[in-house]
Amino acid sequence: MASTDKARVLLVGAGGVGAMACYALESGGGAEVTAVLRSNYDVVEREGFSIDSIEHGKGIKGFRPSKIRKSVPNVTDEDLPPFDYIVVTTKNILDVRPNVLDLIEAAVTPGVSAIVLLQNGLNIELPIIERFPDNTVLSGVSIISASEPEKGHIVHEFTDTSKVGPFPSLKVPSSESVAAAKWFVELYNRCGRVNCQFDEDVSFTRWRKLVYNSSFNSVSAILNMGVVRMRMTRHVVDDLIKPIMAEIFATAKAAGVTLPEGLDMQMIRLDPPDEDFLPSMGQDAAKGNYMEVEVIVGAPLREAERLGVATPTLKTIYGLLRGLQVKAKERKGAWKAEFEEDNPYY
Amino acid sequence: MASTDKARVLLVGAGGVGAMACYALESGGGAEVTAVLRSNYDVVEREGFSIDSIEHGKGIKGFRPSKIRKSVPNVTDEDLPPFDYIVVTTKNILDVRPNVLDLIEAAVTPGVSAIVLLQNGLNIELPIIERFPDNTVLSGVSIISASEPEKGHIVHEFTDTSKVGPFPSLKVPSSESVAAAKWFVELYNRCGRVNCQFDEDVSFTRWRKLVYNSSFNSVSAILNMGVVRMRMTRHVVDDLIKPIMAEIFATAKAAGVTLPEGLDMQMIRLDPPDEDFLPSMGQDAAKGNYMEVEVIVGAPLREAERLGVATPTLKTIYGLLRGLQVKAKERKGAWKAEFEEDNPYY
Repeated sequence: MASTDKARVLLVGAGGVGAMACYALESGGGAEVTAVLRSNYDVVEREGFSIDSIEHGKGIKGFRPSKIRKSVPNVTDEDLPPFDYIVVTTKNILDVRPNVLDLIEAAVTPGVSAIVLLQNGLNIELPIIERFPDNTVLSGVSIISASEPEKGHIVHEFTDTSKVGPFPSLKVPSSESVAAAKWFVELYNRCGRVNCQFDEDVSFTRWRKLVYNSSFNSVSAILNMGVVRMRMTRHVVDDLIKPIMAEIFATAKAAGVTLPEGLDMQMIRLDPPDEDFLPSMGQDAAKGNYMEVEVIVGAPLREAERLGVATPTLKTIYGLLRGLQVKAKERKGAWKAEFEEDNPYY
Repeated sequence: MASTDKARVLLVGAGGVGAMACYALESGGGAEVTAVLRSNYDVVEREGFSIDSIEHGKGIKGFRPSKIRKSVPNVTDEDLPPFDYIVVTTKNILDVRPNVLDLIEAAVTPGVSAIVLLQNGLNIELPIIERFPDNTVLSGVSIISASEPEKGHIVHEFTDTSKVGPFPSLKVPSSESVAAAKWFVELYNRCGRVNCQFDEDVSFTRWRKLVYNSSFNSVSAILNMGVVRMRMTRHVVDDLIKPIMAEIFATAKAAGVTLPEGLDMQMIRLDPPDEDFLPSMGQDAAKGNYMEVEVIVGAPLREAERLGVATPTLKTIYGLLRGLQVKAKERKGAWKAEFEEDNPYY
């Protein structure tokens, strides 16, 4: 698959998670990464990333991926060798931002590039497989807690434990996508400091992560409250977190994924109790940024509706998150407060 | 019932609604009001209330009720003539503040004083009737939009249309409580500028008002979003407001109160569409103040549970509001962020 000694990797979206993936891949020596940067391009071009990492070390200065670019390259027009991997670490907000498909299309070499989605959410692979039926699609679920408090400055606070595995695709032989996943895992681990695992069952992994994300992420965004405080009140867990988790369990089961008993309490107690923690969606909401509502709450809700599973709590939570998303849109000038002509509520 | 020419009225809680009730009662000439003030006592003692009212006039300066006090009088200890009416206009937050029962007890003359609850919510009369079984209890639902932006300064922006009627009580003859309600309505209207109506069916009136309050008030508090914007999005109304209203309709019906068809759309379109409006609970939430969660959402939810009506949306909304209430408590030093020893979520 690789056309050179080093794997050619294109990474789209080098915020916290993306920059740390860059660092792991490049510092292992097995990959040459081209990173597509947006808001932090100028500062990274000038000074490189500065990184404070729990695993790679604090005070790392001037880290530059092999190449940085302002936009996704067109491999045909620019006559570039194909990318072995296209790693997507952008926030997944299909409801408000141009589809990731359009973004990466020009860089994908059919039948060659494996597309790695290091993103949150459920069913995010389906549109990718549909558009690129001849390409391997890999699912990566990353638990890392990496953020970018200032442009170009990455703070990485939790051990990087990720799982990468193949999404089943009709036209790509399983052996090929398994091999692509295993090679990616090897490249990612080569630095010797992170824990990336080959994932045999990405569907299970995504549903498992949803148990936490659909509940704690959502409620933290709506209440602007950290996970530990929720647990301290007890009733926020009893009234909201547990019912949502139970609805995710039931929907996963109807979708053929049996989540283990006790996982709910394990997820409830996941974060250290000594320091409060606001999950990513809560941080987005607090800053008035867009939230990953559709892939974290909308997608399981649609699965539940398709499968006839009752999810009344998640449904209300979804309605509220869509309301908050409108506020973010208004703040960013993407929604205007006005009555459309046919609005029955005028 | 009245022992002097003028009705003797004690008014507890002279914020926006209370101050305007004072003004209507005093300026009509039929009542002598003793107002119990708290945070605005000093400024009202010094300068009186200043009032900008859509009905009574703008720029009213130096309005003083006949008497003002810092605390509820003890009619026995102070050897006072009994009060004909004890009007309660405090915010109804039984979950966080000492019960209104303890507050007014010393001022109630058994068998004489009629207790008038000019407050939001459902089933708020039950504890009053239980504690004061020999006293008439009147229910007042007020639509007025009066607020106190600075201490002692009242802004009254919507015509004062209130309804006052008797709550049924086992030991008080209906004729007596009807007469007390009608006299109160007469005293209130005597100024000639407001519209207070005798209410034959206070239960209906309270359920009717809940259609708006349980939905728009709650969602405005959770989203920090005005009513008009919710209508502009459409989906906030479709996903949240209408389902909550439907649950209130169903619960009211099970409780024997049939709300008229079309009331939901009437309530949805109630506020003028030209200017956004944040209902009281939304204002409380935005300021980090306590909200009337229990009487506006908790009480109908408990009715629904008692009557076996499914209210999944309201249940989730209630859980979220209780979460927000904890934040208000923490802000005011009434809740401490810590794990109790037996907390299973530690």
